[in-house]
Amino acid sequence: MSERDELPSNWGRWGADDERGTLNLITDEVRERAGREVRTGRSVSLAVPIRPAPVLSGPFPPRTAEESPVQQLMLYTGSPAFAHADVMTVTNHHTLSTHLDALAHIPQDGQVYPGRPANESVTTGGVAHGSTAAFAEGIVTRGVLLDLGADGPVPADRAITGQDLDAAEKRFEVHLEPGDALVARFGWVRTRYRGNPMPGMSVDAVRWMHDRGVSLYAGDLSDAYPPSQPFAMHGVALPRLGMPLIDAVDADELAAVCAELGRYSFLLVAAPPRILGLTGVPVNPLAIF
Amino acid sequence: MSERDELPSNWGRWGADDERGTLNLITDEVRERAGREVRTGRSVSLAVPIRPAPVLSGPFPPRTAEESPVQQLMLYTGSPAFAHADVMTVTNHHTLSTHLDALAHIPQDGQVYPGRPANESVTTGGVAHGSTAAFAEGIVTRGVLLDLGADGPVPADRAITGQDLDAAEKRFEVHLEPGDALVARFGWVRTRYRGNPMPGMSVDAVRWMHDRGVSLYAGDLSDAYPPSQPFAMHGVALPRLGMPLIDAVDADELAAVCAELGRYSFLLVAAPPRILGLTGVPVNPLAIF
Amino acid sequence: MSERDELPSNWGRWGADDERGTLNLITDEVRERAGREVRTGRSVSLAVPIRPAPVLSGPFPPRTAEESPVQQLMLYTGSPAFAHADVMTVTNHHTLSTHLDALAHIPQDGQVYPGRPANESVTTGGVAHGSTAAFAEGIVTRGVLLDLGADGPVPADRAITGQDLDAAEKRFEVHLEPGDALVARFGWVRTRYRGNPMPGMSVDAVRWMHDRGVSLYAGDLSDAYPPSQPFAMHGVALPRLGMPLIDAVDADELAAVCAELGRYSFLLVAAPPRILGLTGVPVNPLAIF
Amino acid sequence: MSERDELPSNWGRWGADDERGTLNLITDEVRERAGREVRTGRSVSLAVPIRPAPVLSGPFPPRTAEESPVQQLMLYTGSPAFAHADVMTVTNHHTLSTHLDALAHIPQDGQVYPGRPANESVTTGGVAHGSTAAFAEGIVTRGVLLDLGADGPVPADRAITGQDLDAAEKRFEVHLEPGDALVARFGWVRTRYRGNPMPGMSVDAVRWMHDRGVSLYAGDLSDAYPPSQPFAMHGVALPRLGMPLIDAVDADELAAVCAELGRYSFLLVAAPPRILGLTGVPVNPLAIF
Repeated sequence: MSERDELPSNWGRWGADDERGTLNLITDEVRERAGREVRTGRSVSLAVPIRPAPVLSGPFPPRTAEESPVQQLMLYTGSPAFAHADVMTVTNHHTLSTHLDALAHIPQDGQVYPGRPANESVTTGGVAHGSTAAFAEGIVTRGVLLDLGADGPVPADRAITGQDLDAAEKRFEVHLEPGDALVARFGWVRTRYRGNPMPGMSVDAVRWMHDRGVSLYAGDLSDAYPPSQPFAMHGVALPRLGMPLIDAVDADELAAVCAELGRYSFLLVAAPPRILGLTGVPVNPLAIF
Repeated sequence: MSERDELPSNWGRWGADDERGTLNLITDEVRERAGREVRTGRSVSLAVPIRPAPVLSGPFPPRTAEESPVQQLMLYTGSPAFAHADVMTVTNHHTLSTHLDALAHIPQDGQVYPGRPANESVTTGGVAHGSTAAFAEGIVTRGVLLDLGADGPVPADRAITGQDLDAAEKRFEVHLEPGDALVARFGWVRTRYRGNPMPGMSVDAVRWMHDRGVSLYAGDLSDAYPPSQPFAMHGVALPRLGMPLIDAVDADELAAVCAELGRYSFLLVAAPPRILGLTGVPVNPLAIF
Repeated sequence: MSERDELPSNWGRWGADDERGTLNLITDEVRERAGREVRTGRSVSLAVPIRPAPVLSGPFPPRTAEESPVQQLMLYTGSPAFAHADVMTVTNHHTLSTHLDALAHIPQDGQVYPGRPANESVTTGGVAHGSTAAFAEGIVTRGVLLDLGADGPVPADRAITGQDLDAAEKRFEVHLEPGDALVARFGWVRTRYRGNPMPGMSVDAVRWMHDRGVSLYAGDLSDAYPPSQPFAMHGVALPRLGMPLIDAVDADELAAVCAELGRYSFLLVAAPPRILGLTGVPVNPLAIF
Repeated sequence: MSERDELPSNWGRWGADDERGTLNLITDEVRERAGREVRTGRSVSLAVPIRPAPVLSGPFPPRTAEESPVQQLMLYTGSPAFAHADVMTVTNHHTLSTHLDALAHIPQDGQVYPGRPANESVTTGGVAHGSTAAFAEGIVTRGVLLDLGADGPVPADRAITGQDLDAAEKRFEVHLEPGDALVARFGWVRTRYRGNPMPGMSVDAVRWMHDRGVSLYAGDLSDAYPPSQPFAMHGVALPRLGMPLIDAVDADELAAVCAELGRYSFLLVAAPPRILGLTGVPVNPLAIF
């Protein structure tokens, strides 16, 4: 029995044609539990703000430009302008953009979740199986914050284990139930993306998420850098569990609000633009209390 | 006194630098009322699905392509591919896309809401004042559906008045309170966009929205075609009231669910990608019951 | 000895780091011979005209659009507009675009000309070896037209052989010398691109080009459809000979001028925009008499 | 009589529908004279090399990127890749790109050459009148280099006059004839684009070009910065004379070759991609000796 065989997997659990993966865990009962979290309508955004970079350059441009996940072109609508309009180009998996990974994002041995040939699922014209179509109706479930960085950023060489997640639950007096979304805060949102070493989840933590029935993961970090083998989140949770990931979350304000309110669960709404066939899409997840 | 002076306006109401317009009406009290709408966590999307068109063409492409608000490019990530990733180009104000108009979208006499010079507010590099930055935290409020097309599509030559909206409230036993979002259904989502005549809101209806304190408008239609002068929604509500508009909504499923549940109010969440500086942005608004 | 070993090849001929391939055959002597072709300055374009498709869509767009290799966005430059400017998106290998293929365009068994690892030569950030950088100075050489379709389009099931090329030389009283560019006309420019069967060059014809020292190939067709194995032009001439190809040429006017002047050789200038690192680039090749 | 009336103009000279402007001066006789310049086939590129910037970003991108007129996306063509292909986005009037300005690029008082309403000539969907369609066949004429920077860069505060151009002709023993292209070298190609003051042509120099019948202007600089009123080249020569401009030329190697050969005239070929309807297009102009 190889290590790969031992990795947790949902391939086949919801059929050979399934495209929703762990989102299948969000049942009516889960949604009801989620709805009960809403008491005041107060909401917190988990998205990093994106400042688009202009594609258009004036006559004397600077030699360098701030990199951005989005490039914007202001459009000519007549002279004088009767409207202001624009077109934007979006790098869906940019590390400076809070975005939702579709299940076909990462292949494993030529296959995508739940074991479909990658070359048929993803074509030059877009994603036929395992795309953002799974998010068409939006994701609405209960969210739980585990603030791993409450005492300061998680050290760069740490790999978070299931035991760490158990400890966080105890500390914040919250318990993940099947179908819940896990929001993890490493305390790295201000300092990541520099090519420096960063901590991440271990495969053991992914097993914990699998056992608990986590439906969705959102974190300021997910996989460590330099990468371990296999990638816990992008190499196991996404393609083998079929668990969608929200990359590059900012959970700092959320952590402050949870601490203020003394509760670490909320209604989580992640409703990206209803664009089908993508490998990923920018999203502004909201925690509603 | 010219007709223009008589048009309803919020210019100056929240200060000369305001960028939120009628979103200012969404107070803590409004949010609490909105939160109370959530009972089961059931949610309905108000967005039209978008199928991206590929920019890449194979060796023997068709001579014509389906038009789409989004164009997708599948990216080379090495050979064999270690990941599937893409870049998309989005026409923010495309009529086949459910999108949120920012307040600077339409200028009036060289000014944008609330009376700022258009040429300073909107530059070749993006929108400095009145952009999608106003939607950074997402919009969370109570939504109310007025199903004007419940008995069949509104006739093409009809201009909806305040009286029509009053009548709809009575029929559906619902009442718009200050800060609520108005979702209007004309019953046209399957048939619009053909260049044929279409109905729309009248300036009288905009006055009604102003009086009621509507914070946000979302409709399968908004302005009539051929256009009246002034454009009620895009020429008065957006730039003069500072009321953000969600264009090209699909409210058919919402209408069915409201009828089934016997209630026409819900928590409305409109959280587009957190991209600042745009004139508009695609969005997947959710009604949560 | 396998068939692959028997295929003509220039790998190693100009060193392991060569990026110019058969363009190395264009010596000073060749250029002088080319220069002598110019007598009147009369020039003929070999490019198909491209009508860009707008990315911007008005409020009532058509449901389908003409496909185009180029998409154009008109830019906002202020209101009123002080300048008219645009940005275009170009599909470099579009079949409706006259374009020059760089040598790294097609890999063979994980290698690109002249035997370099494809994964190092072509990265997610562009082409490091075998790119359009080879065309930076423009291509200036003698061109020779072989009008294979002078008596009507070459039949769809024909594979042109070296004997056919010999016969065409005799008929048009012209002789390809080492370093010359071969312009081939199948008579298909008005009818190709439909997914219908089309004729092409055989591997035997590629051997003929290799023997003659052709530096560059430009044709209204090149490889047959359905494709033979191996692709003669894109699978042998380009990657193994290192011969740049100009795809989708329109040689109809050229053929008429050659017939009128009674000569089938000319100065050929192919000077695409000086953009390095691409796999291909649009070009307007000129024949100057 | 206002100053504007005194400015040189070709409006009406070749009819109210003309789109070629001073390219009309390139007659058969001019072409023949141009053809006689070719003796050895030696050619020199006048284009600045462009290194595309990738739109795709890896997981740990740099925070800033080199600005570029071209952005490149490497395309997925299957796994393993059967071909390497890309799409590029081009800012047509970027100051770091050698490009050809179409006549509709700059409006004057709401009109474009030769007096057509700008709002009809240029639409949201592209340029209907005065576009790059005028360059469809390529430009082939005699070119003459006037090396104004032969003794060092022209000082930043200098405005070149007709007298200066006369002097340069004498010095380099060359004479511009009607239909010739003027290549001007200020010696600034390595130092421009910094927002620093730069020299340029005066309206007096434009009058000189008008008198001489210059068909095309190509320079490492054209208009001074800070700009004078009116812009000599972009505000008078382009829209009023209908003279296409090649911006951001590198004439350094050309100057060295002219000095080496002892002659300052050559065949000039400017054949940009045959894309119609643009306001400008990148080009690699070649001087052939």
